[in-house]
Amino acid sequence: MNGNRFGRLFQVTTFGESHGEAMGCTVSGCPAGLELSEEDIQEDLDRRKPGQSMITTSRGEPDDVTINSGIQDGYTTGTPIGMVIQNKDARSGKYEPFITAPRPSHGDFTYSAKFGTRNWGGGGRSSARETVNWVAAGAIAKKLLALQGIECKAHVNQIGDVEAPEVSFEEMLEHSEENDVRCAHPETAAEMQELIEEYQEEGDSIGGSIEFEARGVPVGLGAPRFDSLSARLGQAMMAIPAATAFEFGLGTEAAEWIGKDRNDDWEFDDDGNPVPVENDHGGIQGGISSGEPIYGEVTLHAPTSIPKSQQTADWETGELKEEQVIGRHDPVLPPRGVPVVEAMLALTLVDFMLLSGRLNPDRVDDQPGEYDTDYHPSNPRNE
Amino acid sequence: MNGNRFGRLFQVTTFGESHGEAMGCTVSGCPAGLELSEEDIQEDLDRRKPGQSMITTSRGEPDDVTINSGIQDGYTTGTPIGMVIQNKDARSGKYEPFITAPRPSHGDFTYSAKFGTRNWGGGGRSSARETVNWVAAGAIAKKLLALQGIECKAHVNQIGDVEAPEVSFEEMLEHSEENDVRCAHPETAAEMQELIEEYQEEGDSIGGSIEFEARGVPVGLGAPRFDSLSARLGQAMMAIPAATAFEFGLGTEAAEWIGKDRNDDWEFDDDGNPVPVENDHGGIQGGISSGEPIYGEVTLHAPTSIPKSQQTADWETGELKEEQVIGRHDPVLPPRGVPVVEAMLALTLVDFMLLSGRLNPDRVDDQPGEYDTDYHPSNPRNE
Amino acid sequence: MNGNRFGRLFQVTTFGESHGEAMGCTVSGCPAGLELSEEDIQEDLDRRKPGQSMITTSRGEPDDVTINSGIQDGYTTGTPIGMVIQNKDARSGKYEPFITAPRPSHGDFTYSAKFGTRNWGGGGRSSARETVNWVAAGAIAKKLLALQGIECKAHVNQIGDVEAPEVSFEEMLEHSEENDVRCAHPETAAEMQELIEEYQEEGDSIGGSIEFEARGVPVGLGAPRFDSLSARLGQAMMAIPAATAFEFGLGTEAAEWIGKDRNDDWEFDDDGNPVPVENDHGGIQGGISSGEPIYGEVTLHAPTSIPKSQQTADWETGELKEEQVIGRHDPVLPPRGVPVVEAMLALTLVDFMLLSGRLNPDRVDDQPGEYDTDYHPSNPRNE
Amino acid sequence: MNGNRFGRLFQVTTFGESHGEAMGCTVSGCPAGLELSEEDIQEDLDRRKPGQSMITTSRGEPDDVTINSGIQDGYTTGTPIGMVIQNKDARSGKYEPFITAPRPSHGDFTYSAKFGTRNWGGGGRSSARETVNWVAAGAIAKKLLALQGIECKAHVNQIGDVEAPEVSFEEMLEHSEENDVRCAHPETAAEMQELIEEYQEEGDSIGGSIEFEARGVPVGLGAPRFDSLSARLGQAMMAIPAATAFEFGLGTEAAEWIGKDRNDDWEFDDDGNPVPVENDHGGIQGGISSGEPIYGEVTLHAPTSIPKSQQTADWETGELKEEQVIGRHDPVLPPRGVPVVEAMLALTLVDFMLLSGRLNPDRVDDQPGEYDTDYHPSNPRNE
Repeated sequence: MNGNRFGRLFQVTTFGESHGEAMGCTVSGCPAGLELSEEDIQEDLDRRKPGQSMITTSRGEPDDVTINSGIQDGYTTGTPIGMVIQNKDARSGKYEPFITAPRPSHGDFTYSAKFGTRNWGGGGRSSARETVNWVAAGAIAKKLLALQGIECKAHVNQIGDVEAPEVSFEEMLEHSEENDVRCAHPETAAEMQELIEEYQEEGDSIGGSIEFEARGVPVGLGAPRFDSLSARLGQAMMAIPAATAFEFGLGTEAAEWIGKDRNDDWEFDDDGNPVPVENDHGGIQGGISSGEPIYGEVTLHAPTSIPKSQQTADWETGELKEEQVIGRHDPVLPPRGVPVVEAMLALTLVDFMLLSGRLNPDRVDDQPGEYDTDYHPSNPRNE
Repeated sequence: MNGNRFGRLFQVTTFGESHGEAMGCTVSGCPAGLELSEEDIQEDLDRRKPGQSMITTSRGEPDDVTINSGIQDGYTTGTPIGMVIQNKDARSGKYEPFITAPRPSHGDFTYSAKFGTRNWGGGGRSSARETVNWVAAGAIAKKLLALQGIECKAHVNQIGDVEAPEVSFEEMLEHSEENDVRCAHPETAAEMQELIEEYQEEGDSIGGSIEFEARGVPVGLGAPRFDSLSARLGQAMMAIPAATAFEFGLGTEAAEWIGKDRNDDWEFDDDGNPVPVENDHGGIQGGISSGEPIYGEVTLHAPTSIPKSQQTADWETGELKEEQVIGRHDPVLPPRGVPVVEAMLALTLVDFMLLSGRLNPDRVDDQPGEYDTDYHPSNPRNE
Repeated sequence: MNGNRFGRLFQVTTFGESHGEAMGCTVSGCPAGLELSEEDIQEDLDRRKPGQSMITTSRGEPDDVTINSGIQDGYTTGTPIGMVIQNKDARSGKYEPFITAPRPSHGDFTYSAKFGTRNWGGGGRSSARETVNWVAAGAIAKKLLALQGIECKAHVNQIGDVEAPEVSFEEMLEHSEENDVRCAHPETAAEMQELIEEYQEEGDSIGGSIEFEARGVPVGLGAPRFDSLSARLGQAMMAIPAATAFEFGLGTEAAEWIGKDRNDDWEFDDDGNPVPVENDHGGIQGGISSGEPIYGEVTLHAPTSIPKSQQTADWETGELKEEQVIGRHDPVLPPRGVPVVEAMLALTLVDFMLLSGRLNPDRVDDQPGEYDTDYHPSNPRNE
Repeated sequence: MNGNRFGRLFQVTTFGESHGEAMGCTVSGCPAGLELSEEDIQEDLDRRKPGQSMITTSRGEPDDVTINSGIQDGYTTGTPIGMVIQNKDARSGKYEPFITAPRPSHGDFTYSAKFGTRNWGGGGRSSARETVNWVAAGAIAKKLLALQGIECKAHVNQIGDVEAPEVSFEEMLEHSEENDVRCAHPETAAEMQELIEEYQEEGDSIGGSIEFEARGVPVGLGAPRFDSLSARLGQAMMAIPAATAFEFGLGTEAAEWIGKDRNDDWEFDDDGNPVPVENDHGGIQGGISSGEPIYGEVTLHAPTSIPKSQQTADWETGELKEEQVIGRHDPVLPPRGVPVVEAMLALTLVDFMLLSGRLNPDRVDDQPGEYDTDYHPSNPRNE
């Protein structure tokens, strides 16, 4: 209700402000017996970490995670996993002009108006620094999903007007970490990099988007109507800072498609089970996973913190003023957003794996096995 | 968890299948003292009802709502409002070819695989008929919001490749109900109508999209991070049958905007409070409502039920077959989707009004009044 | 939040007032494939029904249930089960003296103060008539549990100062329905009956208590710490109208027991698994079911509606007045409370069966099987 | 669902095992502007702390709390409050005999069977050490409630067969902290102390109970039917380790009371509002607070860890063995349980204050004021 927790059976609760003592999250609902170390989590944290390249903020956070509970001798115990990540390089000085004036299009005004208090250092709780918690929790979700043969991957498919051509899942896996932009199409990545640097030099920023895909998702995840897989993915992705659009399958393009073209005919797979001929439906039918890859896209607007001068209204002096948001900021969000999108995808899926009874919520060493998803005549009418 | 309820304090629980006895929903969390009759609800139900025009299905459902509880002498009592809507014109015969074979891109396969049973009549629970419940609940939400000066409106802004120019909120209010398409721009509505009829004649269907806007929303709604206003709107809208994309503010276009252009500078309003100069942020900043209009868009793919012949796989015979989905179906979804989008918008907002303490959850005759959203030095550091 | 729903995965949502149109409840989360008819539910409703004997109210409600959804050809479909029970014999006239004055120790004052409105007919939503919904939902829970070998039973073990001696589970099953009091010890039942009739003649009422037991509950149900099995049973039972105490195992007596006596030593069962020698722990250890029978007790205070004259304060006239609560009322609650306690027990257990992954949430024809609850060295430290 | 969180709007999420790195909890939903320091919390932690007297365990934990977020310059910011308490004096050695054999009546067997892993050090997550988190969160709840004039207090009213006479709220406030037993009746406290020491010397332990009371609770808290104030108090109190009974008002005694005696007549207070003449109803009517003091009792069984020899079953060797639970343990639970009961009472009440709209969820500097709870004719029928 208060917005600091995600997930229904695989529950993530987070805390922390950009310039507070520490960030942290508690994962409750991870079954016992999963091999897990701080290193497993660190890997994804490093992909999200500031200062990893010239096109990210230079804030120097090692983002080392400490696990305080829930692990014994390298395996989870089924009890909550408490994690803490210290904030080590907060420099609040640059934010002083904005103590009494909101930064344009940030959460400054809305947070201050809601809570009647101004946590100006680095944006306080409204900062995207919060996503360090999501990535930490997501790393655990990914490990659990991997045991079930489910893989979640994302890459940057658009920066400004530079769009990547369609890439395969394998290309995503292979190429997206090869360049600073995290675009799986190397040539496009280079173009994107150039564009970003251009805006960076101008003291401006630019928007973009991230494409995601999940493989190996079994048939049957999703709880329509209000908690359909698409609805919950929508919530998860739209919670990402700066997200302005969520699409799955054909997305906004679907407006222009006729039924005959969008509909996916049925054929049989080698085992004699019905499978769709194509996957224009994006892996979700009637709100439930179809067994086909789930894919979609998230749009992230340009970072609001820019060195360029902008007008703000000082509520103390009652005067308008022109200010620059100096600090250390990202000129573009998608490159560091890739592990965040993957985390939210994994967190959503692992939750549905538990909700659908596909995962034993207590322990990984005794799974229900693959549920029979053949069509069964469980009532006489069907016989 | 099971997907049949929406809302955290304003709670809607629904039941019903397309060809079952009745649809129904229970609204729990509506404060006492709201004047409410079946007529209030009927009005919106009639806008969603089948058979209302030549471009909707001809299924003849009066969709009369019966209220079983929660009302006394024309006013709500603060206790749950139980509503039932009988199904009166179900004709299952046409669905027989699909008893043992899934209709392309419907929920047939996924529901059958998940539940091991086949509710073939009209798609059972997967049918968009479910949204009759949402509209009923939404009508109550709208009445509550109206008391607080909040208005929710939607119209159809795209069908196939026909897009409406931007319209004002006032135009939406005035024109969207004047034509069968529910497009607030009369000339475009005519074009859309023509296009729809074309596809209808071909035995095909077409996609489209709906634009929505909420006026009068106070500053401070939304519970970042995971329950930001955008995240919860994302869930609400993506739960709508056939939704493939959700956007707010600039939506997918934001990918191409630079920070300086997208950022909204601050100025003062007549009362000396900071207000954004423009509203490129779509009424939500940092996940919380800014006091500006909230606007966005939902894309709905083409109806999957089409008279054109399609291939399906019969799991009983093990053979592929070509079948037509005959029945009585909509050639396009947005016109009947408009009240559905409005309902989900209203349900999301009223829930946040309660969660944010802007509405007394017990009774409408004693409201907290408008909360002070000036910036208050509630701690010494701010003084 | 609004109190009208129970359960996390097996979700019950209810509506209805004592003198409203109808009572009703929606059960969401029942797996597909369970054979279920209105008769299955009716059986328990008849045990709770008014007018069933001389020691219950004479209100003439047949309490016939109608199922509106979620069933196809006699089997559940995995989708929500909507049920309605009409109110047919409401007579509000007798309540008129209390329109502007609260009945002593009823919910009249608190409901009116909270909601600012007075639903005086039969107590409105505060009436114990609501439990008709619980019993309906509980009947479904019981059927599901029976498939897993779990049985829930209760009987009346105290009325006033008449206490029954300890009875076995088998005696409960055999004798509790043989007499109007629902006490499994026939001699005590006769004494209780006499006592009740005595108070009934005096125009007064009397308290009592109900003992419950669940057999066949597997090891591992319960989610400590806040959702331990005892905590959730506590909530479930204390929600019952007139409940003033909940006990499990030794209950309040445990205050006087020393550790050595209360502690249950361990031995081995025939399969070589550790089992407790006794069951002073009441089937729950550390908040989790131990595999032993779960037993406990609920105290219900005397009905507040009594023909004897009582003082109330009329807020309209500002005067005190002596009034009798005439109507048709129960002189004692436990006899009709037995199916209610069983229902709450079953609803709590079935929810934990789902939460613990012991039940496939989607379908009954493909269960995970009994989970291995031997002690497994799932990490090297344990080897 | 996983049991590690409590509260619906005032949300507490906890982690930690007895011998793990640290305990911790996150409080989400505390409004901004509450003056709060680590010292405020420490005070209650010190009352719960081990080693505080001769009748508690001698484990030497300072239980110093560190706040990682949610506070700025001594005031809450409305964002989650992350707290950590290090474990500093864990000594696992004494637990070695029980690595492969469950301690009698502990959570050892059930946790191991559920999770397939054995966290033997100090009982792992099943340890009562967890309540350090509850007390930390409860301290914040108490401060918030105090702003609204609500006070929560408890004391020990029974140890073994030694029962305290009834004491007033004022006596509780004045005397309960004066002795090690935390009994507000000094003479009884001395007797209890003697009894405890007797059992301690015998190497045994003894049960007892705690009485609680809340003053200043406004009319209208509670969300019947399933979330009535009594139901949620039942859950909260029964979650306390070793709780076997929860009572409010007359508790189990109500079984023997007749209606006429238990019913509380109505009179008028000085402002002309109806008030009950007595408070046999325990401050809750129809599941909703009546404005009278809320009082009740929790029974805690004797500590299961006792030096006396007990039989256990070693699942590795397959042999029965006699073992002593040596460690450092409490001979009785209620003295340290007093702040725990107060915490659970405060957490439950503050949650309902938010749920009932009596507290602005965003900020303490702008409260809705006291809601009008007079009886209002909000509909014509009432006029």
